[in-house]
Amino acid sequence: MRIKILLALLILVISGKVISQSDDSLIIRNIYSEALTSSISYENLRYLCKNIGGRICGSPQSEIAIDWVKNVLKDMNLDNVYLQECRVKQWVRGEKEISYINSSTSGKYYFNCCALGMSIGTGEDGISANVIEVKSFDELKSLGREKVGGKIVFFSRAADQRFINTGSGYGSAVDQRVHGAIEAAKLGAIGVVIRSATVAFDSFPHTGIMRYEDSTKRIPAIAISTKDAERLSNFLKNDPSLNFYFRTTCIENPEVKSYNVIGEIKGSEFPEEIILVGGHLDSWDTGEGAHDDGAGIVQGIEVLRLYKELNIKPKHTIRFVAYMDEEIAQRGARKYAEIVKSMNEKHIAAIESDGGGFTPTGFSIDASDTVVSVMQKWLRILRPYDLFFIEKGGSGVDVWFLKDQGFPLIGLDVDSQRYFDSHHSPNDVFEKVNRRELQLGSAAMASLIYLIDEYGLK
Amino acid sequence: MRIKILLALLILVISGKVISQSDDSLIIRNIYSEALTSSISYENLRYLCKNIGGRICGSPQSEIAIDWVKNVLKDMNLDNVYLQECRVKQWVRGEKEISYINSSTSGKYYFNCCALGMSIGTGEDGISANVIEVKSFDELKSLGREKVGGKIVFFSRAADQRFINTGSGYGSAVDQRVHGAIEAAKLGAIGVVIRSATVAFDSFPHTGIMRYEDSTKRIPAIAISTKDAERLSNFLKNDPSLNFYFRTTCIENPEVKSYNVIGEIKGSEFPEEIILVGGHLDSWDTGEGAHDDGAGIVQGIEVLRLYKELNIKPKHTIRFVAYMDEEIAQRGARKYAEIVKSMNEKHIAAIESDGGGFTPTGFSIDASDTVVSVMQKWLRILRPYDLFFIEKGGSGVDVWFLKDQGFPLIGLDVDSQRYFDSHHSPNDVFEKVNRRELQLGSAAMASLIYLIDEYGLK
Repeated sequence: MRIKILLALLILVISGKVISQSDDSLIIRNIYSEALTSSISYENLRYLCKNIGGRICGSPQSEIAIDWVKNVLKDMNLDNVYLQECRVKQWVRGEKEISYINSSTSGKYYFNCCALGMSIGTGEDGISANVIEVKSFDELKSLGREKVGGKIVFFSRAADQRFINTGSGYGSAVDQRVHGAIEAAKLGAIGVVIRSATVAFDSFPHTGIMRYEDSTKRIPAIAISTKDAERLSNFLKNDPSLNFYFRTTCIENPEVKSYNVIGEIKGSEFPEEIILVGGHLDSWDTGEGAHDDGAGIVQGIEVLRLYKELNIKPKHTIRFVAYMDEEIAQRGARKYAEIVKSMNEKHIAAIESDGGGFTPTGFSIDASDTVVSVMQKWLRILRPYDLFFIEKGGSGVDVWFLKDQGFPLIGLDVDSQRYFDSHHSPNDVFEKVNRRELQLGSAAMASLIYLIDEYGLK
Repeated sequence: MRIKILLALLILVISGKVISQSDDSLIIRNIYSEALTSSISYENLRYLCKNIGGRICGSPQSEIAIDWVKNVLKDMNLDNVYLQECRVKQWVRGEKEISYINSSTSGKYYFNCCALGMSIGTGEDGISANVIEVKSFDELKSLGREKVGGKIVFFSRAADQRFINTGSGYGSAVDQRVHGAIEAAKLGAIGVVIRSATVAFDSFPHTGIMRYEDSTKRIPAIAISTKDAERLSNFLKNDPSLNFYFRTTCIENPEVKSYNVIGEIKGSEFPEEIILVGGHLDSWDTGEGAHDDGAGIVQGIEVLRLYKELNIKPKHTIRFVAYMDEEIAQRGARKYAEIVKSMNEKHIAAIESDGGGFTPTGFSIDASDTVVSVMQKWLRILRPYDLFFIEKGGSGVDVWFLKDQGFPLIGLDVDSQRYFDSHHSPNDVFEKVNRRELQLGSAAMASLIYLIDEYGLK
């Protein structure tokens, strides 16, 4: 390593860059240089997207992806690679969904649509009914069973564009997707159509999880693209009595075995103390799961590769977890947390990358003020890499299950503007990921892990 | 305006957002909300890219673009819209460039190529010669006239990926494009091929300005794509004696009249004191000039529209300048600065957006430390909009010509990772611009201008 550092220093001097001479600065400089000049993580993502593709939990593709990650980790000469069994739901989309209107004023129009995740199907014949358009559950309730019964409810509220972080915009609309079918069924609706939950204005249907409750009848639900949602609103203005047809053949099969995939570099001083870096290996089935969350998977693998390639020997164990089933029921994350608790495995920190393979901007910390302030002192050393903040905030869906054990949780924050262009849609493909943006995310996490490993969080 | 502010406050209260109650915060919140919910700037960019297209200075497209910007500004009910005459060079690319090798070992292979801007053409028959590959001017000089004379010099040095800002990576390679033909001609070369100056690894040839000097013979120069550059290196390894052919029919016509386009909202208190926001209207001809710099143009127009729409009455004059001819000889910027000087027009500040329509991250200030520290106090109010820094640094090519008059110059800093995927290539198209990223840039500049107008820079 010493030679690599000197070599890097030499290169930096030659290239005219002057940086702090401390070892930490040099190691972080090395991490970034290696990440930005190796195409391995980008090519891994290409493989995951193009050769395996969308990989909803329980699917054959998810099994292939588990094997592939395991083999990639095995080939890296790590100290430990293993699978961690969990059981997952197995929802199957079935045939390509169909939806259309046939209106006296607007003619026949087919919508870009997809079933929402975990929805029941309509059956082979599909369903057909008049449409009631609403923007909120309150509006729906005010209409009452008389107006809603027997209808298809169209939830058409657009995501709020005014938030700077698109996650908040998404959050302003996603209730329709998650709870729409329950609220509509309570009033006797026979089906639900939602405007895709995204800040993008596009022609892709965006899927995602929806929920039923035991006490309420299950009715089928689809999303249509945001552009089609505006068309449907216009069609309804011209002809409020138009008939909407949709057909979905999705089904839920019995639960099956699946796995988290785990790879480790053992710590030299504290092998029993773990710094976790994770992402989720499952994805929705309509795209390639590139940003969500192929990026997090190849970035986690890349963190381990950077340690190996640069011969950085961590004091604590660095553990990569490819979580299974973030999208449906977080069974992998629940199982992982359960085992951590039963084995009493101490986690120094758990970092998640699940915001897409975009330019990182900082870290969001779900931990005590003390931990946050320790980390904020490192901002000075990370700022030259355009990491702008370390702030108290959320972390990630999967590592969150470790929260009740009191471990510091960390989310890699990335530029959110393009995330919902791809999110849960056929547009979540490899081509939408920029190589350098992806690489910077790996380097950011590896650098933070280096500092946590070196200095701890106390 | 008061009603608008109250309305915005109400909306914010309804939507559950709590923000600072100060007028400044509210006005900036309004600026962002309007920018993020109006598609006007995005649709303007679509028009400029799709209906007008690439618009190299002196071209018919550049004239159409000048008319279009003038008309857009006229329709905005501004206080003043006018053209400012300048003279520009008129370089014409001619027919689609052709380049290939015909090698005994590799067969015939056509390269993705384009003439460099201002290069002479090869003539109808093209030129053909053996290739000498070098990575630097020093290497070229060490080879000497004996080995270089009569050859085509292939400058193959890749951009350095290790810089975080891709502009620095570009800077590490662009000397080959700008000065390669001079250095090669000094040693008797008959033509130059460069690896495109970009951090992208792609199939697009990236053009850009190149220079001749009076004392050295002018030889034709082309760029090939970065992927093709690596192919050519490999071909040469197998067959160092291979013949490279290229044909370009570019010519330089006599200079012609052209124009900067200017639109103003007059200041209510200090109409003679100007806050300038600018971008450049010309672009390279091989793409649509979307990021470079259609984005800057529509953002500057949007700044004025935000002021009008929100009925913000500036104390100082807000002037938008659509500069002509940034890419070739900055004739518009030179003329503008000359007139400012002769008219003694005081500029409070001049802001340029020419880094592409990407997510803004902060502002780079070319001004005194005092000005920088005044502005840094505003970071608190801008930070909720993910503007992370206000730092001393460069501004932009066009406003730079005002530097010797001592005015504070400001560059809008944006995420640079994807800029060189498009830069000067057929890939600089509307589809590569994200609506929200573009909108955030307008809002960032309008907000900063609001603060400068309100508080000054002293």
